[in-house]
Amino acid sequence: MKKIAVGILGATGMVGQKFVELLATHPWFEITALAASDRSINKKYGQAMSWGMPTPLPEKFAEMPVLPCFPNLPCRIVFSGLDSSVAGEIEHNFASAGYIVISNSKNHRMDYNVPLLIPEVNSDHLELMASQPYEKGGIVTNPNCSVIGITLALKPLLDNWGIESVNVVTLQALSGAGYPGVPSMDILDNVIPFISGEEAKIETEPLKILGNYQQNGIINYPMRLSAHCTRVAVADGHLACISVKFKEKAARGQIVEAWKNFSSDPQFLKLPTAPKHPILYLDDERHPQPKLHRHLADGMAVSVGRLRECPLFNWKFVVLSHNTVRGAAGCAILNAELMVKKGYLGNVSG
Amino acid sequence: MKKIAVGILGATGMVGQKFVELLATHPWFEITALAASDRSINKKYGQAMSWGMPTPLPEKFAEMPVLPCFPNLPCRIVFSGLDSSVAGEIEHNFASAGYIVISNSKNHRMDYNVPLLIPEVNSDHLELMASQPYEKGGIVTNPNCSVIGITLALKPLLDNWGIESVNVVTLQALSGAGYPGVPSMDILDNVIPFISGEEAKIETEPLKILGNYQQNGIINYPMRLSAHCTRVAVADGHLACISVKFKEKAARGQIVEAWKNFSSDPQFLKLPTAPKHPILYLDDERHPQPKLHRHLADGMAVSVGRLRECPLFNWKFVVLSHNTVRGAAGCAILNAELMVKKGYLGNVSG
Amino acid sequence: MKKIAVGILGATGMVGQKFVELLATHPWFEITALAASDRSINKKYGQAMSWGMPTPLPEKFAEMPVLPCFPNLPCRIVFSGLDSSVAGEIEHNFASAGYIVISNSKNHRMDYNVPLLIPEVNSDHLELMASQPYEKGGIVTNPNCSVIGITLALKPLLDNWGIESVNVVTLQALSGAGYPGVPSMDILDNVIPFISGEEAKIETEPLKILGNYQQNGIINYPMRLSAHCTRVAVADGHLACISVKFKEKAARGQIVEAWKNFSSDPQFLKLPTAPKHPILYLDDERHPQPKLHRHLADGMAVSVGRLRECPLFNWKFVVLSHNTVRGAAGCAILNAELMVKKGYLGNVSG
Amino acid sequence: MKKIAVGILGATGMVGQKFVELLATHPWFEITALAASDRSINKKYGQAMSWGMPTPLPEKFAEMPVLPCFPNLPCRIVFSGLDSSVAGEIEHNFASAGYIVISNSKNHRMDYNVPLLIPEVNSDHLELMASQPYEKGGIVTNPNCSVIGITLALKPLLDNWGIESVNVVTLQALSGAGYPGVPSMDILDNVIPFISGEEAKIETEPLKILGNYQQNGIINYPMRLSAHCTRVAVADGHLACISVKFKEKAARGQIVEAWKNFSSDPQFLKLPTAPKHPILYLDDERHPQPKLHRHLADGMAVSVGRLRECPLFNWKFVVLSHNTVRGAAGCAILNAELMVKKGYLGNVSG
Repeated sequence: MKKIAVGILGATGMVGQKFVELLATHPWFEITALAASDRSINKKYGQAMSWGMPTPLPEKFAEMPVLPCFPNLPCRIVFSGLDSSVAGEIEHNFASAGYIVISNSKNHRMDYNVPLLIPEVNSDHLELMASQPYEKGGIVTNPNCSVIGITLALKPLLDNWGIESVNVVTLQALSGAGYPGVPSMDILDNVIPFISGEEAKIETEPLKILGNYQQNGIINYPMRLSAHCTRVAVADGHLACISVKFKEKAARGQIVEAWKNFSSDPQFLKLPTAPKHPILYLDDERHPQPKLHRHLADGMAVSVGRLRECPLFNWKFVVLSHNTVRGAAGCAILNAELMVKKGYLGNVSG
Repeated sequence: MKKIAVGILGATGMVGQKFVELLATHPWFEITALAASDRSINKKYGQAMSWGMPTPLPEKFAEMPVLPCFPNLPCRIVFSGLDSSVAGEIEHNFASAGYIVISNSKNHRMDYNVPLLIPEVNSDHLELMASQPYEKGGIVTNPNCSVIGITLALKPLLDNWGIESVNVVTLQALSGAGYPGVPSMDILDNVIPFISGEEAKIETEPLKILGNYQQNGIINYPMRLSAHCTRVAVADGHLACISVKFKEKAARGQIVEAWKNFSSDPQFLKLPTAPKHPILYLDDERHPQPKLHRHLADGMAVSVGRLRECPLFNWKFVVLSHNTVRGAAGCAILNAELMVKKGYLGNVSG
Repeated sequence: MKKIAVGILGATGMVGQKFVELLATHPWFEITALAASDRSINKKYGQAMSWGMPTPLPEKFAEMPVLPCFPNLPCRIVFSGLDSSVAGEIEHNFASAGYIVISNSKNHRMDYNVPLLIPEVNSDHLELMASQPYEKGGIVTNPNCSVIGITLALKPLLDNWGIESVNVVTLQALSGAGYPGVPSMDILDNVIPFISGEEAKIETEPLKILGNYQQNGIINYPMRLSAHCTRVAVADGHLACISVKFKEKAARGQIVEAWKNFSSDPQFLKLPTAPKHPILYLDDERHPQPKLHRHLADGMAVSVGRLRECPLFNWKFVVLSHNTVRGAAGCAILNAELMVKKGYLGNVSG
Repeated sequence: MKKIAVGILGATGMVGQKFVELLATHPWFEITALAASDRSINKKYGQAMSWGMPTPLPEKFAEMPVLPCFPNLPCRIVFSGLDSSVAGEIEHNFASAGYIVISNSKNHRMDYNVPLLIPEVNSDHLELMASQPYEKGGIVTNPNCSVIGITLALKPLLDNWGIESVNVVTLQALSGAGYPGVPSMDILDNVIPFISGEEAKIETEPLKILGNYQQNGIINYPMRLSAHCTRVAVADGHLACISVKFKEKAARGQIVEAWKNFSSDPQFLKLPTAPKHPILYLDDERHPQPKLHRHLADGMAVSVGRLRECPLFNWKFVVLSHNTVRGAAGCAILNAELMVKKGYLGNVSG
C-alpha cells in the first residue's frame, strides 16, 4: 500500500512535535509537510524549534522546511496541533480546500456537525461528516487530554449499568500546559489547584462523546459531571480520582471484568495505533502511577485501579492516561486510521 | 508566670522534632524532657537524630540526654509524637501516672472518652476528661493531619447551614509520611494515588469532632463523607479538593463571610499559638498553593480558595493546611494551651 | 533618625520583589517609589505582577502605583533590579540626576570607576565613587549571584595565604533565572549543564572585587579561575564545589578558623542587614545543603563545608549562598547601608 | 546457537531488577535462576520485591522462585548485583564452584588479579583471568557507575594525547543510591553535596582501568585525579563536569573527532549490547542533559558536550551516562558478551 501523505499544522509546538515523533514510523502515513506560524517559516524544522521529545528527531524531518499554514500543502490529511487562537479559521480553510483535518484543538470540538471522536467510544459519530459543508474535506476533533482517559474508562460502565453522575478530581501533568508552559518556580515543591478552562471541558465534552448519533446530530448523554483540576510536578500522565453513581447495581468483579474485556472498533479493525486492550485494570492498590504506567501499550492504554465502594456515589477509582499520546496526538492518529479504514478518505492518493 | 514543664515522647521523629522546634520559644511551656525509643536512649538529643527542621536546633536541646519513655519524666505535660505501634500503651501509662498526655498519635483518637480536639471546633469535648479513669492525668488527642484542615473549614458551614455530605480528594505532602518516608525514586515525576489507612480516618474522624457532647459521650454528626487520598511531591502542606452538600441554601458571599469571620475559643482566650484568623479566604483563583500559603499565620491558619458552585453537590472549594504545624504539632500545642487556660492542669507546677 | 526615601527600579521582577520584601521592615530605609517598565505603569503594584515571595505583600505596597523609570522619583536612593537590556542607560540617567543607584544589574559592574562591591570584602573600593562623573549621584553595583558567595568564602583564604588558582563548579537555583525563567518541563528530573554568560562572570568579577584600589582604579588580583555552571531543580540557594591552590601552605584547622573568625566592616559598623558571622563553617560532611542552610542568618551568611585536601589543587570545599538574598537584593541593601554609614549620601533627606 | 544459562545474584535489588529487565530479551543469554537474600527465598520473584523498572516484569520471571545465593544454581554465568556487605564471599564461592561471576559489586574490583573491565577500554585485562585461583570459574567486575562514563570519555583522549590530570565534579542520579535510597524529604528542592565513598572510587578506579596489563598484573596509568560528588533530584543519569590537562597539545576539532570516531572491541566483535558509537558528541551547548540523553543507544552510549578551553587545565567538558545501564547492569552484560566471544567460557552449555 502506498503511504498516505500527511501534513502537520503547528508542527513546532509540543503537540506538533509529538505528531512528528509518533508518525515518523507509521505504516500508513508519511509526513510530507510541516507547517507552523510565521516566525518559523522558511527555517528548517530542526532549527525552528527546540525538540523536546524523548526520542531523537529523525534527520529527514530536521531538514524539512517549515511551511506556512496555507491550504496548499502537498498532502491529503492534516493533523492540527494549532493554538486555539488561530486553529478555528485555519482548520476551516483546510477543510474547505478539501483536506481531512484531524484536530487536537478545542475550537471545533463542540460544533454540532463535528465528531468529537475517541475511536473506541463513539466511532459511529463519524456519520456527522455527511452534515459538514465541505465537499472533499472535513474536520474531526479529539477531546481534551483529560477527557479522553476519563471517558474511555466510563464507557464500559455506561454500556453495562448506565451512569447518573460523576465526580472528577484531576492531577495533571506539566506537558499538558505546552511549552514553555508552567514556570519551574511555580511548581517545584508545589501544586496549583487550578487550570484555566479545564473544568468546563471535563463537565461538557463527555456528554457529547457518550451521546447518541441521531438524524445528523448528537443527543448528549444525560448525566451530571463535576470536575476539579489541579497541576502537579509530573512530566507526562494525567491522573483522575473518579466517583461514579450508576443507574443499575453492579458488583465489583463485574466492573473489573467490564474494563478488562472492553474492546471496540479500533481493536476489531486492527488499526496500527490501537492498543490491544484499551483499558488495563491494575490490582496493586498503589497503582496506577504516572511514572510507572503512562507508557503502557506505548501510551495508548488507559490504566485503572483502586476500584472500591464509595459512601456517597457507588464506586470510586483512579484513571491514568498519557496526556500527549492517548490524550492528544495518539488519539488523533487513531482517529485518522479509523477514517481511512472506514473509507472516509475516498481516493487517498495525496 | 512560671513556665510549665513539658516533655516530648518520640522526640527524635519528625513530629517530635516539630514539637521541639515549636516549643523552643513558647511563652508558657518549657521543655524539660526529651524521650524516645531504646536505640536513642543515653545519646545526646543532637546526636540521636538527624535534625530536619527548617530552623537550627537550639544548643540547649542538642545537649539534653534522650530519656526512655517511662512515666518518670520531670514534667507535667507530655506531648506524644510516638509511632502508633507503641503509642497506645505508653500514653496510657503516662496518663495513669498522672501526666496530661497531648497526643498526635491515632491510637486513642476514637476512644469514647478521649477528646479528639481542634480547639476552634470542639473545645467543649474537653468535658470528656471527666469520664477518663485517670486521677490527675488524662489523654487528649488531635485528629489526623488532613482531617484538621478539612474539619476546620467545614465548621462554619455546618454551623450556618448544616452539612449532608462531603467529598474530599487530598494531595498530601511528603512530610506526612514521616522520615525516611517516601523514597525519592517513588515520587520524583510521579503521584502515588494511595495512602495506607488515610481515607478511613478522613471518613470517620470528622463525625466525632463535629459531634455533640452529651452525657459523657459524643453523638457523631450525621453526615456522609467520601475520601480519596494521594501523595504528591510537596514537602509540606496538604491540599484538599472538597465538594459539600448543605442542608440549607447558602449564597456565595455568605459562605466567604462565614469563613472570614470565623473565630472561636482559642481566639477569645488569646492562646499564644492561636492564629488571629483560623480560616483565610484567598480570592485569586490559583490559590491556595502549598508553597505560597502553608506558612500563613506561622502555619496555624487554614487557607481556603476557589469557592464555586458544584453541579453535583452545592459548593466546591480548595483547602490547604500545614500538615506538621496546624495538622499535627501546632494543633497539639494549641490543645495544651486550651487545657491550661480552662484549668485542666490544676496546680501546674511541673 | 528620619528614614531615607528609597525607590525600586524594576520593582515587578523577581529581584525587585525581593527588594520590596527585604526593605518592607528596614530600620533606615522607606520605600517611596516603585518603578517598572511601560506595561506595568499606572497599575497598582499589587496588580502589576504576580507576587512570588514567601512572605505576603504588605497592603501599603500593593496599593502603591507603579511609576515609570524616569529620574523624577521621590527618593534619594534607587535600588535597581532592572533587566540588563535597559539597566545601563536608565541607571546612568538616575545617577546623572543625582540619585545614588545601587544596582544588581550587570551593565556597569566592570566599569573602571564603578565599585563592584561586597561590603565584607572590598568596602575601600567605594573610593572609586570620586572618579564618577556624577555630581550628587553615583552608581554602585553588587556582583553576580554566584560570585558573591564564592568571593566571600575566598576572601579570608586570600588574606592569609594568597591564592594562585580556583576551580569552580556551580549547581545553581531556579530563582537565579528570574521569572518565568526555566520551564518546568526542562528541569523536572533533569540538570541543565549550561547557564548563558555565567561562567565568564565567575571567571572575571572576583579578580576585580579582590583587587587593590590604587589611584582611582582597581588593580585586579592576579589569580586564575575556571568555572562550570549548571542549573538544578532547587528553588533558592547556589551551591559551588570549589578547589583552590594557595600561594602558601595552610593547615586544615587554620582555614576553618579563618572562616569562622572572619569579620569585616559591616560587622564592625553594625549595619542592620549584616550577618553576625558572614561565613559559617558546617562540620557535617553532608552539609551545606540549599534546603537546610540557605536561610541561615536570614539568608545573608555564606555556608561552607566539606573542607578536605585536593589531589590536584591544595584544598577543596563546598560553598552555599542564598542567591536572591546574599547574592542579590540583600547584598545591594548592605551596600546601601555601608554608603550611608560612610557618609556617601551627604544630606540624606529624600 | 543454544542460549547460555545465566543466574542473577541479588535479583530483588535495583541492580538485580535491571539485570532481569535487560536480559529478558537477550539473544545469547537465558535467565534460569534468580537468587537473593534469605528473606526473599521461596517466594515467587514477582512477590519478593516491588518491581521498579520502566518496562513491565515478564510473567515467566514473576513466577520463578527466588533461590538462595548458594553455588548450586542451574547456570554457567552469574551476574552479581549483591550488596557489598555480602558480595565478596558469595562471589568467591561461586567462582570456586566453577561459575563465571560477572559482578557489579565493589568488593573484588581492586583485587590485583580481577579485571575491572569496560569492554571498549581495557578488554586485554581479561588476561588477568589466568592468574585467578579458580579452575573453571572466575570473577570479572565492572567499575563504579560514575567511573564507567568518565573513563570511557577519557580513553580516546589518553590514547591520542596522554593525560596528566583530571578534575571531576559529578551530579549523580537517585537510582545510584539503590532502593529505598534517598528519602524524598532530603532531595526535593535540594542538593546533597556528598556521596559516601564515591570520591575515593573515582580517584582510584580509572588508574587501574586505564593501566597496562603486564606480566599477570596491571600497572596503573600515572595521572592525578580529584573528584567531588553530589546527589541531585534526577531519576537516572550521572552527569560529570570534567577538566583535563593533556600531555600533548590538541585542537578542539581533533578532540571531537577522537570521540566521534572512537570504536573498540565490542563494536568490532558486534556484541549484541554494544552501542554502535560508544561516545556521542552533542553540539548544542545546553547538552547533554540526563532527561534528554540518558536513553541514547538504549542507555549504552556516553554523551559528551560543551568542549571548551579551560583557563586552568587544557579542556573542560560534560559527560553523561546512564548509571544503571552503561554504568552498571549494561556494562556487566557487555563484559559477559565479550568473554563469550573471546572464548573464556569454554563449553558454554549451562
